[in-house]
Amino acid sequence: MKATARAHANIALVKYWGKRDRELNLPSVGSISLTLRELFTETAVEFTSELTTDELILNDRPATPEQTGRVSRFLDLIRTQAGIKQAARVISRNNFPTGAGLASSASAFAALALAGTRAAGLTLPPRELSILARQGSGSAARSIFGGFVEMHRGTRSDGQDAYAEPLADDHFWDLRLLIAITDEGEKPLGSTAGMEHTAHTSPYYSEWVRSSEADLAEMRAAILARDFSKVGELAEFSCLKMHALAMSARPGIVYWNGTTVELLQAVREQRKSGLEAYFTIDAGPQVKVLCLPENVSAVRDFLSGFPGVQRVLETSPGPAAHLIEESA
Amino acid sequence: MKATARAHANIALVKYWGKRDRELNLPSVGSISLTLRELFTETAVEFTSELTTDELILNDRPATPEQTGRVSRFLDLIRTQAGIKQAARVISRNNFPTGAGLASSASAFAALALAGTRAAGLTLPPRELSILARQGSGSAARSIFGGFVEMHRGTRSDGQDAYAEPLADDHFWDLRLLIAITDEGEKPLGSTAGMEHTAHTSPYYSEWVRSSEADLAEMRAAILARDFSKVGELAEFSCLKMHALAMSARPGIVYWNGTTVELLQAVREQRKSGLEAYFTIDAGPQVKVLCLPENVSAVRDFLSGFPGVQRVLETSPGPAAHLIEESA
Repeated sequence: MKATARAHANIALVKYWGKRDRELNLPSVGSISLTLRELFTETAVEFTSELTTDELILNDRPATPEQTGRVSRFLDLIRTQAGIKQAARVISRNNFPTGAGLASSASAFAALALAGTRAAGLTLPPRELSILARQGSGSAARSIFGGFVEMHRGTRSDGQDAYAEPLADDHFWDLRLLIAITDEGEKPLGSTAGMEHTAHTSPYYSEWVRSSEADLAEMRAAILARDFSKVGELAEFSCLKMHALAMSARPGIVYWNGTTVELLQAVREQRKSGLEAYFTIDAGPQVKVLCLPENVSAVRDFLSGFPGVQRVLETSPGPAAHLIEESA
Repeated sequence: MKATARAHANIALVKYWGKRDRELNLPSVGSISLTLRELFTETAVEFTSELTTDELILNDRPATPEQTGRVSRFLDLIRTQAGIKQAARVISRNNFPTGAGLASSASAFAALALAGTRAAGLTLPPRELSILARQGSGSAARSIFGGFVEMHRGTRSDGQDAYAEPLADDHFWDLRLLIAITDEGEKPLGSTAGMEHTAHTSPYYSEWVRSSEADLAEMRAAILARDFSKVGELAEFSCLKMHALAMSARPGIVYWNGTTVELLQAVREQRKSGLEAYFTIDAGPQVKVLCLPENVSAVRDFLSGFPGVQRVLETSPGPAAHLIEESA
């Protein structure tokens, strides 16, 4: 059996940082995100007795042994659940740069969860898919759904209450997110390593975890009320709070470059001059700017002309992970 | 009576951020600093019946009413203690830029405390001078002393145990500090306002206060052991921890510009290539780089050629505040 799925990247508006269990990839804090139409991964999975080991083609090239190993361990979860033993051929393609803080692992593992289960003959309900995707990448649990999505940290040790779910339907609110790429390279320190180092060494980590519930409640309410100023203000707060947390590790982790900071300051300046836009930044140097549809062209002009910005991607709310093709 | 004093700026290696009492200017955390020979304020004070109100000449110009008011309130403390009522003529000059995150208020209030008390006929022991200077500016309490200095937060509500004292004699250890000026302008948000906003809104503030004692103990031991790697590593940690704290306020305070961050990353890169130097940054965008005397020229070359660096100041351990001139 063979199945091909598409899943979209997402951007966290209330940030995820820290794991409460590494084995099951359980988060220490919940998070709230927006799924993005324009950035996606398409993945085809075929279980076949022609192969003896899993094969991964990533962006038209054979993947590294490390990448293949990570995908293989994820496929083992599916094989166990489906009671099959065959190796798989996986062909995956992102339509955006990999590993540069654009959440490529989120769309990758969401697409792999959907295509992989279908290719194995399983039809999982969305919540189960989200739980499965989470085990590949924490943020992938959110990319199973479209629009505004909340990930629950859960409290159970088996992870069955650590899943994402949509806060509203996919077309609830047409917010726009422009992504200013300041560095095309891969980030020097991946999220998982950064999270572990932070949890072990930051004096602020326990307060980060403790105070997260209040941020989630505020953001949930602001989204449901379509209160853009509140959503933006909270997104900046959560972003700086997460980066502050990483910086307070020992040694401190600084994901930013000069352009990141100049942009962050400039977005605030622009706001004072009447252009309502808000920044958010993930574990990398790219700056994402949230605005209403009527301000997209002003924000695009501002970002495109900014020194150090290499290119600008425009995104809008996107759909849930879905099947593209299926064949027996 | 007239007296002229010189006091030197200082740089905190374990940072001060937050007040436990605004009236008496009592800090929430202790701090450890190095007094800097090359940056100083010279201040002449004369109490005279010729004047009916205090007069302040700052850097050869009449001061603003706000600056004069702050100095006048400080002189009131001296007048009360000395039992005099005369107004004062104060002439003060910095040999470095004012208000750009170079601790000009530290040297200014230390010089004013010494010159003012002597002009009022008082001879205070250093600890009393430090307590007095603290009421003008928290970091001024440290500039009463030379070399490595520790400021105690104290616990008393009258502030009598919130003073600085030297950790060793002035010539204990010849560390060097190079200051890369990235922006000559005054900082947009002063330290006092920044501290208040942080204390009121940051989720990390209580942990900042709680964990400060351990940082002080580690730094004290590292300095006394002349362990440069340890001192440098701790200085970077304390610096990022303070900036992280300010960033986690709501809204977050970011004192950096693009050059600040590029420099911070570059200092770390230089270290990987064998040039042992460490950064520290105060409430402004300038980057201060700590190194051993034998590496000054390499650090100077690196900083001078760095894009965005306007000029570089070289500093070394400096002496305690001292009298320059006194006349009846």
